[in-house]
Amino acid sequence: MDRIPILKMGEYLLVTVQVDMHDRLAMTLQEDLAERIVKARARAVLIDISALEVVDSFIGRMLGSIAAIARVLDAETVVVGMRPAVAITLVELGLALPGVRTALNVEKGMEILRRSLGQSEGNGNGAAAEAVAPPSEADAER
Amino acid sequence: MDRIPILKMGEYLLVTVQVDMHDRLAMTLQEDLAERIVKARARAVLIDISALEVVDSFIGRMLGSIAAIARVLDAETVVVGMRPAVAITLVELGLALPGVRTALNVEKGMEILRRSLGQSEGNGNGAAAEAVAPPSEADAER
Repeated sequence: MDRIPILKMGEYLLVTVQVDMHDRLAMTLQEDLAERIVKARARAVLIDISALEVVDSFIGRMLGSIAAIARVLDAETVVVGMRPAVAITLVELGLALPGVRTALNVEKGMEILRRSLGQSEGNGNGAAAEAVAPPSEADAER
Repeated sequence: MDRIPILKMGEYLLVTVQVDMHDRLAMTLQEDLAERIVKARARAVLIDISALEVVDSFIGRMLGSIAAIARVLDAETVVVGMRPAVAITLVELGLALPGVRTALNVEKGMEILRRSLGQSEGNGNGAAAEAVAPPSEADAER
């Protein structure tokens, strides 16, 4: 497989990671995601890792940098579906995924996003990223 | 990988097929899906095959039988994201996926489902499957 599919669902992008990530696949995913966030005017990225039995430092770093890239493009990232064993291993390895939000499953992740995106629209002081890319009128198109 | 993850999103289940299906993986997916449809009281299954560059007769049959299993469990199935080349090959092979609904992408698939599920609720004469499993009060829980 040469690339991981990115599904657009309204304002969210959904990525299901099912295979072991190697260097090039991870790079492609980052580039594809950055492009899709801009093209689809996405507000958030959901990354499902429920299929992964092992999350090593490479994947940990990749998740962190995807979240960072999304943030500067004014999109939030939520990693969902982490297995309990993966959470234990990650912390034991000293990889607590700083800067990455997590949720139990896709539904909970969407709930978090709805709340946090709704809030930052409501009072307008939520996201620091807004200074970089203010909510445009184009959002109203959809 | 031993199984393909099934994501629950409200009344829908979403499956993203990214790897080549072999016999056992396909069997596991069918069993998992049947179980999840019942457990999650799902009304529909969306299968994204945008990552597949080749869909052979084996996968074609699998999609057909998943749709048939879902139907007897009172859930609809929509296959989304088929590549143009795949569509051409399928028809050339004489596999026009009878009994399987398709849509361009996940969003369009959900639109189709919203319409058709809304309709069958509205006038009550939509789905033949309703005779087997009438819409239960349990649906109102969610």
